[in-house]
Amino acid sequence: MTDLEVVRFDPRPEQMRYAFGGGRPVLRVRPGTVIELTTEDCFGGKVREVTDLPSRVCVFPELNPVTGPIHVEGAQPGDLLAVHFIDIRPRRDWAVSSTFPHFGALTATHTTAMLHPPLDEVVWRYDVDVEAGVVRYHARRGDLSVEMPLDPMHGTVGVAPAGGEVVMSITPSAHGGNMDTPELRAGTTLYLPVNVAGGQLAIGDGHCRQGEGEVCGTAVEAAMDTVIVVDVIPGAASGWPRLQNDEYLMTTGSARPLEDAFRISQHDLVVWTAELLGLDPLDALQLVSQTGLAPAANVVDTNYTMVAKLPVTMLGAAQPYDGVHARLRATGRRYLDEAGLRPIGRG
Amino acid sequence: MTDLEVVRFDPRPEQMRYAFGGGRPVLRVRPGTVIELTTEDCFGGKVREVTDLPSRVCVFPELNPVTGPIHVEGAQPGDLLAVHFIDIRPRRDWAVSSTFPHFGALTATHTTAMLHPPLDEVVWRYDVDVEAGVVRYHARRGDLSVEMPLDPMHGTVGVAPAGGEVVMSITPSAHGGNMDTPELRAGTTLYLPVNVAGGQLAIGDGHCRQGEGEVCGTAVEAAMDTVIVVDVIPGAASGWPRLQNDEYLMTTGSARPLEDAFRISQHDLVVWTAELLGLDPLDALQLVSQTGLAPAANVVDTNYTMVAKLPVTMLGAAQPYDGVHARLRATGRRYLDEAGLRPIGRG
Amino acid sequence: MTDLEVVRFDPRPEQMRYAFGGGRPVLRVRPGTVIELTTEDCFGGKVREVTDLPSRVCVFPELNPVTGPIHVEGAQPGDLLAVHFIDIRPRRDWAVSSTFPHFGALTATHTTAMLHPPLDEVVWRYDVDVEAGVVRYHARRGDLSVEMPLDPMHGTVGVAPAGGEVVMSITPSAHGGNMDTPELRAGTTLYLPVNVAGGQLAIGDGHCRQGEGEVCGTAVEAAMDTVIVVDVIPGAASGWPRLQNDEYLMTTGSARPLEDAFRISQHDLVVWTAELLGLDPLDALQLVSQTGLAPAANVVDTNYTMVAKLPVTMLGAAQPYDGVHARLRATGRRYLDEAGLRPIGRG
Amino acid sequence: MTDLEVVRFDPRPEQMRYAFGGGRPVLRVRPGTVIELTTEDCFGGKVREVTDLPSRVCVFPELNPVTGPIHVEGAQPGDLLAVHFIDIRPRRDWAVSSTFPHFGALTATHTTAMLHPPLDEVVWRYDVDVEAGVVRYHARRGDLSVEMPLDPMHGTVGVAPAGGEVVMSITPSAHGGNMDTPELRAGTTLYLPVNVAGGQLAIGDGHCRQGEGEVCGTAVEAAMDTVIVVDVIPGAASGWPRLQNDEYLMTTGSARPLEDAFRISQHDLVVWTAELLGLDPLDALQLVSQTGLAPAANVVDTNYTMVAKLPVTMLGAAQPYDGVHARLRATGRRYLDEAGLRPIGRG
Repeated sequence: MTDLEVVRFDPRPEQMRYAFGGGRPVLRVRPGTVIELTTEDCFGGKVREVTDLPSRVCVFPELNPVTGPIHVEGAQPGDLLAVHFIDIRPRRDWAVSSTFPHFGALTATHTTAMLHPPLDEVVWRYDVDVEAGVVRYHARRGDLSVEMPLDPMHGTVGVAPAGGEVVMSITPSAHGGNMDTPELRAGTTLYLPVNVAGGQLAIGDGHCRQGEGEVCGTAVEAAMDTVIVVDVIPGAASGWPRLQNDEYLMTTGSARPLEDAFRISQHDLVVWTAELLGLDPLDALQLVSQTGLAPAANVVDTNYTMVAKLPVTMLGAAQPYDGVHARLRATGRRYLDEAGLRPIGRG
Repeated sequence: MTDLEVVRFDPRPEQMRYAFGGGRPVLRVRPGTVIELTTEDCFGGKVREVTDLPSRVCVFPELNPVTGPIHVEGAQPGDLLAVHFIDIRPRRDWAVSSTFPHFGALTATHTTAMLHPPLDEVVWRYDVDVEAGVVRYHARRGDLSVEMPLDPMHGTVGVAPAGGEVVMSITPSAHGGNMDTPELRAGTTLYLPVNVAGGQLAIGDGHCRQGEGEVCGTAVEAAMDTVIVVDVIPGAASGWPRLQNDEYLMTTGSARPLEDAFRISQHDLVVWTAELLGLDPLDALQLVSQTGLAPAANVVDTNYTMVAKLPVTMLGAAQPYDGVHARLRATGRRYLDEAGLRPIGRG
Repeated sequence: MTDLEVVRFDPRPEQMRYAFGGGRPVLRVRPGTVIELTTEDCFGGKVREVTDLPSRVCVFPELNPVTGPIHVEGAQPGDLLAVHFIDIRPRRDWAVSSTFPHFGALTATHTTAMLHPPLDEVVWRYDVDVEAGVVRYHARRGDLSVEMPLDPMHGTVGVAPAGGEVVMSITPSAHGGNMDTPELRAGTTLYLPVNVAGGQLAIGDGHCRQGEGEVCGTAVEAAMDTVIVVDVIPGAASGWPRLQNDEYLMTTGSARPLEDAFRISQHDLVVWTAELLGLDPLDALQLVSQTGLAPAANVVDTNYTMVAKLPVTMLGAAQPYDGVHARLRATGRRYLDEAGLRPIGRG
Repeated sequence: MTDLEVVRFDPRPEQMRYAFGGGRPVLRVRPGTVIELTTEDCFGGKVREVTDLPSRVCVFPELNPVTGPIHVEGAQPGDLLAVHFIDIRPRRDWAVSSTFPHFGALTATHTTAMLHPPLDEVVWRYDVDVEAGVVRYHARRGDLSVEMPLDPMHGTVGVAPAGGEVVMSITPSAHGGNMDTPELRAGTTLYLPVNVAGGQLAIGDGHCRQGEGEVCGTAVEAAMDTVIVVDVIPGAASGWPRLQNDEYLMTTGSARPLEDAFRISQHDLVVWTAELLGLDPLDALQLVSQTGLAPAANVVDTNYTMVAKLPVTMLGAAQPYDGVHARLRATGRRYLDEAGLRPIGRG
């Protein structure tokens, strides 16, 4: 790499963390640094065959490991941390998904408590073919095999929460965390509020792909080689994680019931649009109401996540945060060029 | 039209209905008939200028008029009614949207009851340009004007409910009704359960376009010239409305809280996928979990509506209901050809 | 009865209705009339033994029969109908309860849709001893028998809904209906908004007793001999059913999610308290916040119902609706005296 | 005190904590120890006059201070901690309540996000008369004053959460925390799951009284002199906080939406009843369904809390946890006798 500052971090197993907040940074970087890191899958790599039932091989609370926290120098409470995903690349030629007892959208859970016994715990093992850009599903109780497009993303990205809280990595909230949205793919910039010095960024839970809602509770779970570039926007903290790619501004809300996740995300998109276009809030509400998209991210985690999307074509020349996305995107493209990497999925 | 059976129905104002169930049919047609009909907008055409506040010019319960009911001969309880939308075309060169006191996703409502006074009631008047394929938004409290793609759809389509109920047209539920999903555009087939003889189909609430969630409570509301073709699939009733276009199988759920709308739609998509592919339900759950989309339809009506979408590429050669969508789609294309109509929006 | 106007109505089976709205009155009475009527249980009397499974012996939509509608002369839209319960008396020496497939608070349902098979359908047959004031429970899968206090009430009381709707009797909403609150016992006055001429009152779903929430989906279901007295309060319509007994003002909300039922009921109690005491809404909010009770009514029906209760001791001399409760209560006491009836339960 | 082991802890302001989990114990006690402690009110004592607006005088995250954590020797993960409340006594002759911007059940909040400006922030100052057993409310925007019974309780009692989490004291969950139920009064035993060695009990948020639901967001908030006695029941951990007094077994659920809080509490009451009476779960469900109570605790906090109550008369001779409640209750009575303290409220 010519003048890009690039650092690499491959955590050893004992360095893995399972929470946001409270840990010691494993890495310190300056804004503008490109970070190459590896992440383990949500099962800690312990589910390798269809006979490896997660409820047996995984031990609470060592679920959903994250790589980090990364201290971004200069980031202070009130700032916004921009995390641009340059590349997300499966590290193995297989990935797994599973049901899990009393977890998922179509089953009784520990909070949607019912008298039903759990559904069967079943593991699916996918073939991952990065060259062909597909993963291959195999039915467990039948012969069907189907190829699905590879579309790598990270389910879990976040910073240390406010108020000194330490929150398990499976929870999405205002600090990011386990939002499980397929929108968090390469080519996307994620904006997170900085609550403590350095932000304390951590990343995990790579998915080869994921449907909206993550209905069964897990995606096509995979360890990843991931490259990001980070930046800090002083004093720009907003309440909830926002995303931007070349086509959409996106906001997120993570809460229960699902309509509150929807409300948070839509409210923030209205507020953001009003700011960017100098609109009255009701005028911005109208604009968002007619042009916005509202896909579910996850409806299974301890909070549910909804995403609100506004086409950037609605913005005219307005660019959030002085065009940081375009700058980081350019850095990302340069990195990929210099590394000779071809984008995979939609990234 | 060569051998297409085509009938036309333009309701007089006093023929408008405001509920599903309980009314006398305005039209009787055989399966396979193409029906040209006109619909009024959700305000009954009474909101024409930004000074026409809906809460003043509209009188409860004469809200959200529907055209129908249409009796489809031979349709019996237990059958499925297929309604294919051939064309949805704005009848005027303007359309309107508005906020409404205590209605919408980002305001206290009569059921999400709070001590806040209502938000301001504001009307937006859009220019509609069918030739250019756009609608034009004008901010009310600023100078911004923005073009948005025209993408016509119907918010309200349904049949007589089960159990002899008469349900206001603003409510979406298992009988269809006010689902307010942008997926209900031309080129799409809607499947509705038949609860009473003839099904008693009614259609209204045309939108020039709508964002997912219909956050402010209304879309770009317009009177429409709409063409449909109907068919009956004996004994194929499923519990909730389903949709199909050339790219997706879609299911819907309308309920509160929003996660129940999500659960209904996803459950039905899993069941439908399992049937079509001969899969075990958990194998179908896995397939849907990784490839499904889950956009909000509306999060404002008396029930909220979510849509679940499966790419038809997952189905291989399987075709729901013996390929009725393809047949009706072909009929629709022939109709458009013979009528010299160019599809608008994405239809 | 000296000068009380008393009428009696014992419906024949074919006179039973299963919905609110749309039917012809079975009785016309003047305000002030005492009405003796009989009601059948929610199973239409078809579940008599533990082997009579509701899903087999009951046929949709003939569920939850109601006695009525009763036309109260002079009642006009905008008025309030006061229905005072003088006596609710089980007609048989047995009663039944049951689970029902996919119905209840601790099971997947048709709207909280999941992939679980239904829980077992089980019927419990209770002994009813009016003299001793108890019902006796017998475990079905063990030997335990327990006596519980008899506390008769009606789960379903309502009027014709607004907007011409016809709503199945199992649904609670602003028109009353299947609220399933144990507060609706003898000694209580229920206030219902009049939506159509005569109000069209109907009553059913007697319970020998019921826990708050009606968790399993049914109460101790029984046919009843019930005596009410009705009155009309011109122009006093409020949005949602209210109740009053000698100790509490009560409001209800029926909606989903449960917090919306809570919000409706609390909002109405705050508004009502503010009116009665001439308080600012926030002062009334504070008073209700510190002294109100908030029991669940049902968390199983198509809408959930919450009740909000304010001790009348907070009201000083203020009396709602010019003291109609006290007047009807006095009429009720006179009726009981003259009829030689001893109140049962807490009535 | 004769042979009671009694310790006292009066925290200095800088010893106050604002979270459960992660802190160092301020006190170590053996099971069976009586603990006299003082707690500050939820505003940290900073709201003393109606002009002290909480949003100005309180600084995030120093909200809702708790006294503790207390390490109970021998308590291990998997054990149950029994905390019996002997006495809860207001320390001042005044108490306060308030609204707070975007907090409460009848206002838009940060998660039920809406476009409304916040409701007015208003403080009410109550007179507290322990001798007379009342608090006195004064309307802020009118002349009304009303006496309400004094009924002291603690809104916030909990232990260190599972999984190493650190959770702000305003959140109720499986570890207890800010459940805000009026049932947590003197005479009641609270059972909490032990997640870390010593349990790490902390207590705060005393209320002179509170309505069910805590609608406005705060109760009659007061600093307290509180006396408890603790015990450990080895291996008896259940998932969620349970309570017991002389009349009722009680379970709690804290979640959103409110029906999930209801489900958790009812599910746990069914499971507990089945265990205590040796019943099949469906038989226990039936028993609970007909005799249980289901009051709201709070519908304002980050999780909502519902309580499920079963009359102990349903239990026959069965006693949970070998009668620990009766033993601790006896200890409490002895303490009060020897201290010459008269119970206040309903305790």
